[in-house]
Amino acid sequence: MINFYVVSIFPEIINIYTKYGILSKAIKQNVVKVNTINPRDFYEKVDDVAYGGFPGMVLKPEPIYEAYAHILYLTGKKPFVIKPEPWGKKIDQSLIRDIAKHENIVILCGRYEGIDERVNRLVDLEVSIGDFILSGGEIVSLSIIDAVSRLLEGVLSDENSLKEDSFTNRWLGYPVYTRPECYEDMCIPWILKTGDHNLIKLWALWERINLTLKKKTSAIPGCVTDIEYDIIKSIELNLSFEEMAFWKKIL
Amino acid sequence: MINFYVVSIFPEIINIYTKYGILSKAIKQNVVKVNTINPRDFYEKVDDVAYGGFPGMVLKPEPIYEAYAHILYLTGKKPFVIKPEPWGKKIDQSLIRDIAKHENIVILCGRYEGIDERVNRLVDLEVSIGDFILSGGEIVSLSIIDAVSRLLEGVLSDENSLKEDSFTNRWLGYPVYTRPECYEDMCIPWILKTGDHNLIKLWALWERINLTLKKKTSAIPGCVTDIEYDIIKSIELNLSFEEMAFWKKIL
Repeated sequence: MINFYVVSIFPEIINIYTKYGILSKAIKQNVVKVNTINPRDFYEKVDDVAYGGFPGMVLKPEPIYEAYAHILYLTGKKPFVIKPEPWGKKIDQSLIRDIAKHENIVILCGRYEGIDERVNRLVDLEVSIGDFILSGGEIVSLSIIDAVSRLLEGVLSDENSLKEDSFTNRWLGYPVYTRPECYEDMCIPWILKTGDHNLIKLWALWERINLTLKKKTSAIPGCVTDIEYDIIKSIELNLSFEEMAFWKKIL
Repeated sequence: MINFYVVSIFPEIINIYTKYGILSKAIKQNVVKVNTINPRDFYEKVDDVAYGGFPGMVLKPEPIYEAYAHILYLTGKKPFVIKPEPWGKKIDQSLIRDIAKHENIVILCGRYEGIDERVNRLVDLEVSIGDFILSGGEIVSLSIIDAVSRLLEGVLSDENSLKEDSFTNRWLGYPVYTRPECYEDMCIPWILKTGDHNLIKLWALWERINLTLKKKTSAIPGCVTDIEYDIIKSIELNLSFEEMAFWKKIL
């Protein structure tokens, strides 16, 4: 089980997120626990003006250290401490897998102009979700908690689901359709109605390769199988899936 | 004023976030409004099994189109529609500025295996916060709403604050300190206590350049001022700020 300890002066943002979807399931299955630690519970005044005449308020060091001491008391051993920073390591699926190796994970959420520099002694990893400015660390915390929870075994009702997701597999995901068969002028691809499992699998692979070539060439794998090679060639020739399948004598 | 319309089956995640920080201030000042639209309010059954024997549930097209029709009724004109996707454009501060040019912004949040492919006809922009897997579009929505709100005029109590943030300026941000002057063995840099505004400004620039050189070289600007050049040289020579200031006859 992974224990998250999110240090935030707005814990409700984190708490509400734990109530929904896969994360709530993961919590019920005891594979993850999300604790919020509010520095206000340890210190009346959590922020003060910046030294040096700079604008805005800064989160004080003492309440953060007090919150950390409380977490140490709960865990009994040194947790892994993450701090969202503009220059932090970009979060990707491989970093999520690394983070998920830790048992006790603390995330320090800044607000206002940030947390007093002197808390940095605690920090093991600085992370970022992109070159844009957010008001606090809560959104980054939710990103980590959500992505890590999805990784944990037994969380998903259908194991296959995770495997089909983009980034864990070789290509981007396939397009999904559900009832009704036709909505206004838009009908589902006829292949999905054939019940021909192999044909549908091939169609999904074709769609995933097509999407990857068109929208995210950085996700093209370094080496491909024979059938993947044929699909890439057919897309380069502007063939449709049906034409490719006919050419390869599948249809 | 910018109007956000977040289409989500878990609107509480969005609603709670609007209660805090700069976003709540922006809402009170009427520069931004965040509306949540729950597809469940328009359709009893919002999800169904995937066609083709694929695992998991898919959000149905009708409730999304009904939600969109309701938004059209509210806005009276075509809104700008954003959909989080793994292959979407990476969100950065420049994309945030582009998004902020629109008056009515719809964000479609997928859940489960995603939204039925047939809603894509509505979508103007696909976005992403990184190559990792999330359970839904809500975190990306919050990222956009938070970052756009920060941009809007008059939102920040202190205009300078925004300008000093990383990514809007030439270098990463400076370290922030607040009271107490000393916490355990850690004291604030003595320069911050001098009251010498020019010296403090120079120190902040030195810290920002140092941080950028050490942690995010991609943020180094293409051309630099004379003083920035001197600072870079001094850091390359492993000089401290004090040594550099003494060398340049500032101290």
